[in-house]
Amino acid sequence: MEKLIYEGKAKQMWTTADEDVLRVVYMDQATALNGKKKDQIYGKGVLNNQISSLIFEYLAQKGIENHFIKKVSPTEELVKKVKILPLEMVTRNVAAGHFATRFGVEEGKKFQTPVEETYFKSDKLDDPFMNDSQILALKIATKEEIEKMWSISRKVNQLLTDLFAKMDLKLIDFKLEFGKLKNGQIVLADEFSPDNCRLWNISDNAHMDKDVYRRDIGNLTTVYEEVLKRLKRVLMEEN
Amino acid sequence: MEKLIYEGKAKQMWTTADEDVLRVVYMDQATALNGKKKDQIYGKGVLNNQISSLIFEYLAQKGIENHFIKKVSPTEELVKKVKILPLEMVTRNVAAGHFATRFGVEEGKKFQTPVEETYFKSDKLDDPFMNDSQILALKIATKEEIEKMWSISRKVNQLLTDLFAKMDLKLIDFKLEFGKLKNGQIVLADEFSPDNCRLWNISDNAHMDKDVYRRDIGNLTTVYEEVLKRLKRVLMEEN
Repeated sequence: MEKLIYEGKAKQMWTTADEDVLRVVYMDQATALNGKKKDQIYGKGVLNNQISSLIFEYLAQKGIENHFIKKVSPTEELVKKVKILPLEMVTRNVAAGHFATRFGVEEGKKFQTPVEETYFKSDKLDDPFMNDSQILALKIATKEEIEKMWSISRKVNQLLTDLFAKMDLKLIDFKLEFGKLKNGQIVLADEFSPDNCRLWNISDNAHMDKDVYRRDIGNLTTVYEEVLKRLKRVLMEEN
Repeated sequence: MEKLIYEGKAKQMWTTADEDVLRVVYMDQATALNGKKKDQIYGKGVLNNQISSLIFEYLAQKGIENHFIKKVSPTEELVKKVKILPLEMVTRNVAAGHFATRFGVEEGKKFQTPVEETYFKSDKLDDPFMNDSQILALKIATKEEIEKMWSISRKVNQLLTDLFAKMDLKLIDFKLEFGKLKNGQIVLADEFSPDNCRLWNISDNAHMDKDVYRRDIGNLTTVYEEVLKRLKRVLMEEN
């Protein structure tokens, strides 16, 4: 019997007959402001599943091992079961969102080298921002685990910055999560979609990500469909 | 003519006839909760000036160069003029205060290795917590400057943990500030007093620092006087 083992804001995780494999169901839900803003958006689950599947397949081809196995329906995929490390690894190429307001920096300012931030995944504590010495003192992760996650994040940043550039998109920032396979290997997990990154049109700086929903400045599905369309075109040209 | 060049929550800085020397005036003011709680406490300036002078002299004897020159009156001291680096360097040996609440850790938990945190000194931004990659991206300090400040902070932690232990006090945490001399050298600046550290009695864990004021659990001057008394006794025994 398949069991629901996790239900987040936009995804469910189910067990499967294979104990090393989980089934992810993408839901039609969008949230922002730590869940204070919440809406059902018809078609969002299908779009996130398609975009994330294509990006995880692309990253795997380029040597970034990740939990993705295959897409099994418009809203579902199979993934390797991992033990998620409770850290969100955020990379920022350009100042935007919270960063811009927190530090009084203009949105759009490009950094000479990317900013790297870790947040502790804890609903109870409201996902606090942490530095390495705090993470080590509280034994949330080891130095080696942190370094491994940043090493993969930097490769992902390079690969996706290049890929999105071909789609007329600037990769402004993104959040990754990682998990450990049964053998202890740390691999990329969760998803990669306009839900957890910022993408701006190179041509006109238009927001092509969840900010259209967060800020009520556009239609989420229209924007995600456009991202998917460009992604498919560029991936076809690649192969 | 002496000019007031800075007025903070508890201190004024004045120019002197010597352009490389400033006069610090310790005021009888206590603040907490980022200035939301504020009181005049008669005698506090005299106590802070005495405690900080003695500690900065002690640190200088032990090789920690700092801005302190000499005490010139009960509430005044002369210091070398430095360009203050806009970072507060916080070292935590034991979980307390904000750290304990922010991360859901019991106050009093000792860390295997100290936690090190930097805060950007900015009233406008409410002194945000920052990690190194943010500090570098916003060009607030260089990697070398950050490393130098931590290297000094670690020595101060060792020296003062030992000194306070002789006073039946545990050094729980403390905040240091640093400045640059005209020649570019980074030296310890600001003050060291129960205003910017936590001290708990080893014998009974009683709070012997500004927490008695922050939390309304005791008389600030009585506690600071006791710290000063023990400090004088231990320093006399040292020499």
